[in-house]
Amino acid sequence: MFKSAASVERLTNRLARLPGIGRKSATRLAFHILKLSKEEAFELADAIREVKERVGFCSVCGNISENDPCYICTDPKRQRDVICVVEETVDAAAMDKVEGFNGLFHILGGRLSPLDGIGPDDLKIKELLNRITDEVSEVIIATNPNVEGEATAIYLSKLLKPLGVKVTRIARGLPVGSDLEYADAVTLTRAMEGRREF
Amino acid sequence: MFKSAASVERLTNRLARLPGIGRKSATRLAFHILKLSKEEAFELADAIREVKERVGFCSVCGNISENDPCYICTDPKRQRDVICVVEETVDAAAMDKVEGFNGLFHILGGRLSPLDGIGPDDLKIKELLNRITDEVSEVIIATNPNVEGEATAIYLSKLLKPLGVKVTRIARGLPVGSDLEYADAVTLTRAMEGRREF
Repeated sequence: MFKSAASVERLTNRLARLPGIGRKSATRLAFHILKLSKEEAFELADAIREVKERVGFCSVCGNISENDPCYICTDPKRQRDVICVVEETVDAAAMDKVEGFNGLFHILGGRLSPLDGIGPDDLKIKELLNRITDEVSEVIIATNPNVEGEATAIYLSKLLKPLGVKVTRIARGLPVGSDLEYADAVTLTRAMEGRREF
Repeated sequence: MFKSAASVERLTNRLARLPGIGRKSATRLAFHILKLSKEEAFELADAIREVKERVGFCSVCGNISENDPCYICTDPKRQRDVICVVEETVDAAAMDKVEGFNGLFHILGGRLSPLDGIGPDDLKIKELLNRITDEVSEVIIATNPNVEGEATAIYLSKLLKPLGVKVTRIARGLPVGSDLEYADAVTLTRAMEGRREF
């Protein structure tokens, strides 16, 4: 059997653990890194170290941030009475593109998933409830529109409603530009349920 | 616009430079690395540094190796009269799976590609010619069966033949398990040209 240098083997193993990178891609990446200049490779290594050394979570909203509280929570231009709840930071980035939304975020850090052993205590739910003061008029739940995201949304709404805050869920329906013909029945049902008068 | 922490942005940029990793995958990987334990992330960073610090090239065959000469060139069990010439180390790894082949390798470090500005001086061709002594009876050229690989093979054969060594090229033809129906005309032509008597 052809053996690679031990350190190449080690790097390949590490890379293959990353999501979406199989054994073949890991080998290709390892060889690519071998061909990089020393500076470029070290810059990549340092960027990985740095991200773990500098980045933490905002103690208010759970967003990843180098400062605490994060730049969103401290932004004076944002509406402070609306909180949009999402699963992950990437989801907050997506929701922040929504025109007309200029509120705050709360990042749960995942979704309820009993099969994976993720319960309410593993998410930043207590932190969310602590944020509900008289200042907050609406909580928009924007967890993903799949089984676990929906379950998380229902669970949260049951905790939030008794606090006297308006709780809303983003609409499920047909994506813009799609074809009715290719839409699945569940999406069509949701689209029908969510219909609005002209 | 939603801003990520600056160090996350830097890591994403570095990752997006790797081959086969676009902006989206890079973001996903960066967030995955953020979620790793500090130890795991540092191990990945160190593996990248290590590979650049430890691994060099074998001065005999051009193989990547932590030792010089590499373990293949110093293996007493290998046939020393046959040299298989390949473009890259990964190709040597592939060829080394061939049953019945137990010779040495020579890794060119690429292929002739005038459009990319890669000429004979950029490949380890001089090193190959220096290896052709009376001890060597055959050089098998196993560059890739594409335009550039073929051109490199022809170029090498012209340099090697005058040295009185047998020069062969691996066969091009239909891959085992494939369908004639879906084979391209060039492959079929090569398969026809390379036909052998039963």
